[in-house]
Order: sequence, then C-alpha cells, then structure tokens
Amino acid sequence: MKVAVIMGSSSDWHIMKEACAMLDAFKIPYDKQVVSAHRTPHMMVDFATRARDNGYSAIIAGAGGAAHLPGMVASMTTLPVIGVPIESKSLKGLDSLLSIVQMPGGIPVATTAIGKAGAKNAGILAARMIGMTDQDVQQQLKAYEVSLVEKVEEMQDDLR
Amino acid sequence: MKVAVIMGSSSDWHIMKEACAMLDAFKIPYDKQVVSAHRTPHMMVDFATRARDNGYSAIIAGAGGAAHLPGMVASMTTLPVIGVPIESKSLKGLDSLLSIVQMPGGIPVATTAIGKAGAKNAGILAARMIGMTDQDVQQQLKAYEVSLVEKVEEMQDDLR
Amino acid sequence: MKVAVIMGSSSDWHIMKEACAMLDAFKIPYDKQVVSAHRTPHMMVDFATRARDNGYSAIIAGAGGAAHLPGMVASMTTLPVIGVPIESKSLKGLDSLLSIVQMPGGIPVATTAIGKAGAKNAGILAARMIGMTDQDVQQQLKAYEVSLVEKVEEMQDDLR
Amino acid sequence: MKVAVIMGSSSDWHIMKEACAMLDAFKIPYDKQVVSAHRTPHMMVDFATRARDNGYSAIIAGAGGAAHLPGMVASMTTLPVIGVPIESKSLKGLDSLLSIVQMPGGIPVATTAIGKAGAKNAGILAARMIGMTDQDVQQQLKAYEVSLVEKVEEMQDDLR
Amino acid sequence: MKVAVIMGSSSDWHIMKEACAMLDAFKIPYDKQVVSAHRTPHMMVDFATRARDNGYSAIIAGAGGAAHLPGMVASMTTLPVIGVPIESKSLKGLDSLLSIVQMPGGIPVATTAIGKAGAKNAGILAARMIGMTDQDVQQQLKAYEVSLVEKVEEMQDDLR
Amino acid sequence: MKVAVIMGSSSDWHIMKEACAMLDAFKIPYDKQVVSAHRTPHMMVDFATRARDNGYSAIIAGAGGAAHLPGMVASMTTLPVIGVPIESKSLKGLDSLLSIVQMPGGIPVATTAIGKAGAKNAGILAARMIGMTDQDVQQQLKAYEVSLVEKVEEMQDDLR
Amino acid sequence: MKVAVIMGSSSDWHIMKEACAMLDAFKIPYDKQVVSAHRTPHMMVDFATRARDNGYSAIIAGAGGAAHLPGMVASMTTLPVIGVPIESKSLKGLDSLLSIVQMPGGIPVATTAIGKAGAKNAGILAARMIGMTDQDVQQQLKAYEVSLVEKVEEMQDDLR
Amino acid sequence: MKVAVIMGSSSDWHIMKEACAMLDAFKIPYDKQVVSAHRTPHMMVDFATRARDNGYSAIIAGAGGAAHLPGMVASMTTLPVIGVPIESKSLKGLDSLLSIVQMPGGIPVATTAIGKAGAKNAGILAARMIGMTDQDVQQQLKAYEVSLVEKVEEMQDDLR
Repeated sequence: MKVAVIMGSSSDWHIMKEACAMLDAFKIPYDKQVVSAHRTPHMMVDFATRARDNGYSAIIAGAGGAAHLPGMVASMTTLPVIGVPIESKSLKGLDSLLSIVQMPGGIPVATTAIGKAGAKNAGILAARMIGMTDQDVQQQLKAYEVSLVEKVEEMQDDLR
Repeated sequence: MKVAVIMGSSSDWHIMKEACAMLDAFKIPYDKQVVSAHRTPHMMVDFATRARDNGYSAIIAGAGGAAHLPGMVASMTTLPVIGVPIESKSLKGLDSLLSIVQMPGGIPVATTAIGKAGAKNAGILAARMIGMTDQDVQQQLKAYEVSLVEKVEEMQDDLR
Repeated sequence: MKVAVIMGSSSDWHIMKEACAMLDAFKIPYDKQVVSAHRTPHMMVDFATRARDNGYSAIIAGAGGAAHLPGMVASMTTLPVIGVPIESKSLKGLDSLLSIVQMPGGIPVATTAIGKAGAKNAGILAARMIGMTDQDVQQQLKAYEVSLVEKVEEMQDDLR
Repeated sequence: MKVAVIMGSSSDWHIMKEACAMLDAFKIPYDKQVVSAHRTPHMMVDFATRARDNGYSAIIAGAGGAAHLPGMVASMTTLPVIGVPIESKSLKGLDSLLSIVQMPGGIPVATTAIGKAGAKNAGILAARMIGMTDQDVQQQLKAYEVSLVEKVEEMQDDLR
Repeated sequence: MKVAVIMGSSSDWHIMKEACAMLDAFKIPYDKQVVSAHRTPHMMVDFATRARDNGYSAIIAGAGGAAHLPGMVASMTTLPVIGVPIESKSLKGLDSLLSIVQMPGGIPVATTAIGKAGAKNAGILAARMIGMTDQDVQQQLKAYEVSLVEKVEEMQDDLR
Repeated sequence: MKVAVIMGSSSDWHIMKEACAMLDAFKIPYDKQVVSAHRTPHMMVDFATRARDNGYSAIIAGAGGAAHLPGMVASMTTLPVIGVPIESKSLKGLDSLLSIVQMPGGIPVATTAIGKAGAKNAGILAARMIGMTDQDVQQQLKAYEVSLVEKVEEMQDDLR
Repeated sequence: MKVAVIMGSSSDWHIMKEACAMLDAFKIPYDKQVVSAHRTPHMMVDFATRARDNGYSAIIAGAGGAAHLPGMVASMTTLPVIGVPIESKSLKGLDSLLSIVQMPGGIPVATTAIGKAGAKNAGILAARMIGMTDQDVQQQLKAYEVSLVEKVEEMQDDLR
Repeated sequence: MKVAVIMGSSSDWHIMKEACAMLDAFKIPYDKQVVSAHRTPHMMVDFATRARDNGYSAIIAGAGGAAHLPGMVASMTTLPVIGVPIESKSLKGLDSLLSIVQMPGGIPVATTAIGKAGAKNAGILAARMIGMTDQDVQQQLKAYEVSLVEKVEEMQDDLR
C-alpha cells in the first residue's frame, strides 16, 4: 500500500519531510509532490480524483494559512486524508489548524498537530492505517512503540 | 453587470440574503445558488471556471467553519471574489474568518465581517466595484451614503 | 473489521451518536462504551492495551475540556485513533481541540472538528480507513459521495 | 483606472510595496502616500472625500494595531477600499485584522490576509476589480494565473 | 465641567446608559448623542474638533466590532477620551476591545472593560478625572468608595 | 499637578520610560517607583492609600502577566489610574491586557495599548487629564498634535 | 484543619458552592465569605494577613474578569491559595483564567478549571492537601476515587 | 515530606529546574524523573499508582502541547498534583495551559503559569502545602516573603 505526500509549496518540505522520514522508517512506499489548492486547482482535482486509481491507499497533505488543500482533496476521494497544519508567519498555525480541522459533516480530514510533530505523526498515522491489515507494518509499529520507551530511559540518564 | 451569490448550504441563506437585499436595493442583477466546496467540488470547479463566460462580473461567496468556498472559487476565476464568513456553532466564526481571509499571496479574497453585517457589506462592496464604471450604481451608492446619515439622525431622536 | 466508539461520559452520547449513525449507515460493526481517562484510568489502560486483541480495527474517542482520552488511548495501542473534541461549556471546545490535536511527535491522534460534525466525520473517517482494503465499504463511500451531491441539489430547490 | 495605495506610516512600506509590485506587474497606474487616520485625520478626510474626483478607481489601505484607516476611508468614499492588516508587534496582526474586517453593515472594507501576502493580494484584487471592464488587465490576470501553475511546476523539480 | 457621552448607534444605549447613571450619581452634567464614525464621519469630525470649544472636559465613546469611534475622536481633540468596547455578536467584544485599546503611540484612548461594567466604569473614570481639581466630585468619589464596602457587607448577609 | 509612574519590576522600565519621556516633553512633574502588587502588597496599599495626600493627581501603572497592580491601586484611591499592559513572554501581553482592562463595575482603570505605544500614550493621557484645567499643558498638547502632522509629512518624503 | 472559601461577590456563590459541597463531603470544616479585592481591598488585606492566625490551613478564592483576589491573597499569606476562575459574561472566563494563573515567579496560585468543575476541584484539591498528613481525609479521598469508577459503571448502563 | 518532580521530556528540564531550585532553597527533599504520558504510559501508571507508597507527599508535573501528564497522574493518586504548562513552539503554551487546567470535576490539577515562572511557583506551592503542617518550611516561606520585599527595594535603586 502506497501513500501520497503532498504539500502546497516546496517551502513546506522542511516540515513535511518528517512524514516521509517515518514512512521510510516503516518501509512504506510513498510519492511526494507539490499540489497547490490555490495555484494549481485543476491539478489538485486531477490528483484527488485519480488518487485511488493511481494506487494510493492514503494521502498526507500539508498546508498553511487558509489551508484548503487537505479538505478539498478529501472532498474528491474516498481515501483517508491526513491534514498537517503548517505554522504560518503571523498567526503561528492557528489559522492553518482551524482551516483544516473544522470540516463540515460529510468530508473528514484526519488532522494532526501544527508543524513538525504533526508531520511526523501524519507518517505514523498512515502506518497505523496500513497496519490495520498489514502484519509487517503492524510489527514495525510495535517495535516503534518500544523504541519510544527506550528513548525516555535514555532521557532519565540525561537528567541525572 | 451581474453578480453571483453562492453559499455552501441553504442553511446559510438567512445570512446571505442580506447581500441579495443590498443588490436589490442597488438594482444590480444577480443569481443565487448553493455551491458546496466539499460536497459538490466538481460543480464548484464548473461554476468558477465558467463564471466570467456566464456573464458574472463579481462573485459573493459565503461559507462557515473550514470555509474553503471563497478561496477555491477565487483560484479558478479572475473575477473579484468577496468572501463572507458565516458564524460557526462552536468557534463563532473565527474559524470561518481565518479560513477565508488568510489566503496565500497570488489568490485574493475580499473578506468582509462575520455574519449578517458581512453579508450586507458584501452586497455593497459588489456595488462599489460595479460603480467604478457604472454611473447609475455610483449614484445609488451616493444616495445610500446619505441615507446612513439620516438613519443616525433618527437615532438621535430615539436617544432623547 | 470492528470499530470501538468510546467517550469520557454518557453526557457525550448526544454528540458521539453521530459517529455511530455513520457506522450504521456504512454497515460497519462497532461497540460503544464509556471510558473515562480521569475517572477510570485503569479501565482505560485495559481497554487500550487489549483493543487490537479484542478485535477492533480502529478507535473513535470523544472527550471535552482537558480531553486526554484520545491521546492516552493512542499511546497504548498501534491502532489508528480518531479524536472528537466535544464542545466545552466556557471555552466552546477550543480547549478540547487543542488537548486532542497538539500531540507530541510519536503518538498520532486523527482529530476531527469540534462537536457533531466532528463525530459524524469520525464515523466516515473510520469507514475510509476500513475501505482501504474492504471493497464493500469502499462502494458505500462512493454511494455516500453521490448522496452529498444530491443533497446540495435539493438545497438548490429550497433556495429558489 | 488609477489606484491609490495609502498606509498609516512609512514603516509599513516594506509590506505595502508588495501591493505596488503587483500593480506594476499588471501595468496599473497608482500613487502611494502616507495617510494616518490618527495623526493626520483631517488629511485623511480630504483624501477620502476627494479620492474619486482625484481620479482614483480603488483604494488600497494598510494599517496595523487599532487599524482604523481602511474603514474610515471607506466611510467617506463610494470607491471600493481594500484593507491590508499589518502585523503588529505583540498581537501579531490579530488586532489589525479584527479592526479592519469587522466593519458594521453599511460600510464595507475588502480585507486581505495579514502582512506581505495580504499586501500582494490587495494589488491583485485591485487588478481583478479593474479587470471587470478593462480587457488588457483581464488578459494580464489570465497570464498571471498561468504563471502560478508554472511556479508550482518548478517547485516539483525542487522537491525531487 | 461637562462630559459628552457618544455612541455609534442607539442600540448601544442599553450599555452606555450605565455611564450616564454614574455621571448622574456624581452630579456631573453631560450630553448624550449618537455619533457614528462610519455612517456620519463628517459629523464625527465636527463633534471632535469642536468638543473642547463646546465646553466638554472629557468624552466617553462606546462602539462595537471594528470600533473606530473612540480612537478617531481622540485624534481630533486634546480632551481625554474614554473608550467603551460594546460586546459584538460573534466575537463577544474581543474585536471591539482590540480596535479601541491598541492605539498607536501619540493618540491615547482610556479603555475600559467590555460591556456594562466598562460603561459604568467610564462614568466613574470621568468623575475621577474631574475630581482631580473639583472638590465636590472628589467628595462624592470618597462616598462611593464607602458604598462599595457597604454593598459587600450586605452580600455577607446574603451568603449566610 | 504631579504624576506617579509605578511598575511591578525594574525590568519594566525599558517600556515605562516611554511614559516618562512624554511627561518630560509636556513638562509635567512626576515620580517613578517600583511598586509590586505581589511582592510588596503592603507597600502598594500604602502607596495607593496615600497617593492623593502625597500630591499626586494621576497614577500610571505598568504591569505584565497576571497584572494586578493597576486595578489594585485603583481600588484604594479616587485618583484616575492609567494601566499599561507590559508584553509577557508566552502570551505576548494578552494576559496583561485582560488582567488590567476587564475590571468589574465600580473601579475603573484607564487601559492603554500593550507595550511601548501604550506606555507613551499613558504619558499623553495623563497630560490630557491635567490639560482639562491647566492651560499650559493644554497648549503643549495642541503643539504635540501639530508635530504629529509634521512627522507624517516627513514620512511622505521618505516614501518618495 | 480548616479551609476558607472566599469569593469576590455573592453572585459567585452558585459556582463556589461546588467547592463547599466537596468540603462537606470530605467532612472538612470551612468558612465562606465575600471578600472583594476591588471593593474591599483593606478587608482583603486583613483577611489574607491573618488567615493563618485565624486557623485556616488553605484558602479557596473564586473571582471573575480581571480576577485579582486569588493572587493578591496569595501575596499576603504563606498558606496555599487555590484560585477558581469564574466564567465572565463576554470573554467566557478566559480573562478570569489568565488573570489568576499567569502569576509572576514568587507568588503561586493553584489554579483550577473555569466554572463549576473548577470550584468542585478546588474543594477536592484542598482535601488532597489536607490529606497529605490527615489519614481520615486520605481515606475519604480513596473512597471518592472508587465512587468515580462506580459512576462510570452506571453510565455504561445508560449507554446501553 | 518528599516531592516528586516529573516532566514529559528531558528537554523540559531547563524549565523544570526552576521548581527544583525552589525546593532546594526551602530544603525540601525531592526526586526528579522523566515520565512521559504518551511514550511511557505504563511507567506513568506505575509511578502515579505508587507515588504515595513511595513516600511522596506532592507531585510537580511539567508538560507541553497536548499536556496530559499532570491530569493523568492526578487521576491515579490522591496526592496533590501541581501542573506546569511548558511553552510550546507554535501556540506558545496556550495549548499546554488549557490541556492542564481544564480538568473535569473530580480530578484536580493545581495549575501554575506557563514556563519558568510557573515552574518556580510550583516549587513554592509545594512548599506552601508542606508548610501547612511543617513549621520549618513555614519559617522558610516567611523568610522568602521578606526576601521578595528586599528584592523590590533593590530595584528601587536600579530605577534611580
């Protein structure tokens, strides 16, 4: 199962690469692409309408400010869409978050946290979805869970 | 010059009718229509792409919550688009406002106030745009300006 | 594939039943249960730790205020967890939303909108996840997409 | 058709020049001027009252904090007024945005995003208004729309 | 010393009458008037420019939403201007408050709380200003201070 | 007439000196002092209770975060108290502003903008209060008003 | 060990009685009293300064808006002070919360949630403090913990 | 009586050390530890469930973003739990604050200010709780109160 990672601008890459890093870690194949809701609306329609036929199982979409990309893509596919609010300059991503999460009944976007943590979690969330039926990914998720505990144990040493 | 008044749901009509009332007052022809960015994305693409060819000079779009309609329409036309944030249940339209106004550089939406005042002003703003070259509408706007002064004079009497 | 719908209090049911209504519509089996992060933390640990073994494929968790349930459950399972922010009395769900969505890197919660729309979308999002591999659910989602367009067409008539 | 670009202080120029850059790009003539609502209220009254007679077709006004300039100018002209919220030091432009956009029914301000993106969009919005009747500007807007798509295509290469 | 109590609309009277009630209580003469920054800008200029010559010592101005009245009046007089943020429908007066209080350096507005408490305090604040040199008002303010203590003593009885 | 300028900490001086600079400019005598509501509550009680007897006509109080100083001083004097919200580290002065401005009916604080502009305006506001009866200060305020216009005229040159 | 429950106004009683109900439930003696920071500052100073000598072990203080009572009391006693933000009319207790919780380093206020839940928790928190050394209260807290689980079990039945 | 100081990550130490510094100053023994609600939920359950048996009298817990640690620990102990909101990157700790303070009725968290001041106050608050019955700590708190006054006196010299 393949994931699409899209973002409104190449300047979002320094955030969205966190999602890709997690997909790499879980050995999940993915494509990454700039798809802008506002600058390339027709390309977005094409992308969203064909996403399932193009072999994607889930879509991760990052956007900032009046962040319409995740919700618009979600309206033109039946795949699960994960939205990552990118931190905006003035309002620090509160605008991005509300534009993504406050979707009307009927068209869900699985929204994660603002910024890098949200992008990272988008990758893990895609893995959890795939892991619903894929035993290999499921095993990786369990291993990852253990690694988080180990990281905290290392932190204990830092603290002492 | 004809205006299109669109909204994401017929439940927005009790707000958006304020825009239509002003267009009526200024004798500006208009069509009103439900166009939902999320439920009918393809209809929205059609609407926006053909709006100029269909004879519209400006578009007024009302939407609430993750309000993508005005910005998406603006991305597929070169007409001026006026966005009206509809008050949402929990966040009282702050989400609607930020989703509409915080557009990225390249695709402007002329945003008005949240709710009825914003819808009313959207109608007047369309009139001001048309009045840039239309002398009749221009005269009506001047008359309207005078009527606002008269309304305040009546208020003086209320106060005494 | 079975879904668990949990909530912090039975008073959240009038919101969370929207999720169940969508699962019913998509013919997805589910169990519903009160699991309180703060009043029954040990029951929550049991629930989350055993969720996969108990046959669940995804978890929908609704909570309000300092809404810890979705994030805590997500930390003790590798299933995808969907969080629904319940509107709180004073802060209108802004606290619920931020408590659910702003998860640290490592433990994702798929957050939906505040209140009923969010609960409804949680049900649809679970269906989209299941539909990644389940052709029947996938068909239902396509039919649902069409029904949304029809609903807007009916609204057109309302407007005229 | 000529545009007036005004701002409350010369320190707003590094933002408002984005509006001028777009007007230059669309070959729309404009004048730029400091007009302060609070420091030069009488000059503002003169400016606004005479704007149409002085040959302006639209006004772009940038202001920050308790940003009264766009709304006050809009109250003394029938031209369309575009308001650009300048980012303020403490509240990051939320005060500027609300002071500009929340106008009462009767006097519209076409509000754009906070900061540079908003200033840029103000220039484009003025062009869209002029393009309602001016075929040359209309052509430029179409070319600009195409250039946005090309910019995204370049970004694709960056990403790879 | 006489005070002017102005407001943007007669619908603000149910709030602003609290200011007048306090002026009555302190036996301070006052005039009340609707002066709208946006609907009657020229009347506002006249009012503000002549306020001192018309015998006013201080001005109390209430306004809601994009509340420009207090700041604009303050820019055209050297009298102290007290601004009362009127609660707005959607944003509950946060817009009113920020539009009034966030004035740029050079033109102060003495801002009070949102709504009735703020209007009441505006009346008392005017009295405190007049009491700087007027011994009678000064005495009344001392008596009022005592009455507040008595009110709390009565509340003690309520509580028991 | 003499003004007291107080602040909760000497670290507030870089903001509050703006108030003193304006008092200097208007040749109004003043004393400056650190008075902390929370660290030196008894000193604050003494200060406030005796302020009038110590010859002050008005008090300017700056404080940040849970900013109680202006309101508490206002509760123990009948002098007009001007509150300046100091920008706080995390919440950027929104906490300071609300803690100062949202006073209950009965005890007014004349609140100015967050930070340096607010401190400067506090000095001018004190001058406007004194200028209610002091002709010299009144003349200075008129001269200052003119200087603001001149400053804008200089800005015009900057812009060209 | 005895607790003092104070509030700024008798109108806060319908909230603060929740704290008293919990103290009753834990059989902890308490006194309740109206103490207003702003209307009765000197009574507040007396109350706070003598609280320990008067036999109190902890203080619960509720206040709304510019809520100075908890922080001011905390500055004049070494007892632990629990602050309850009362919901305010316009800003729904956000102002109350920030005014209470954002205390400067040196003077802590143990802040609870806005409104009834916060008042109830203030009572429980006082019990937890007393339970640090009092075995009886400690037992009651354990019993209360069990009762919360039972309440959730009853809710399960409601849900079915 | 011994205090536990816990935090979600070792990166929180630069904030939480302020709490430890105050405990050191008051000669209160404490242990510090990384306990992550989300990465080590089972360790957190162990920690909280055994905290009283392990000899702790109070718990100080710092966390940021969707900050669940203080509330979850409070749900599994009858000890008083003090929550310190750590400033988050995008939302500056507003998310941390609301996630900690808005606890439902039944499980209190004694919340302090965002960031360093809050951590420092958490240490002092723990001391105040212990000082309810411990005369030595009580004496230290009185000495500390005096030191705050002295610090302000030094500030006076700075100001002159």
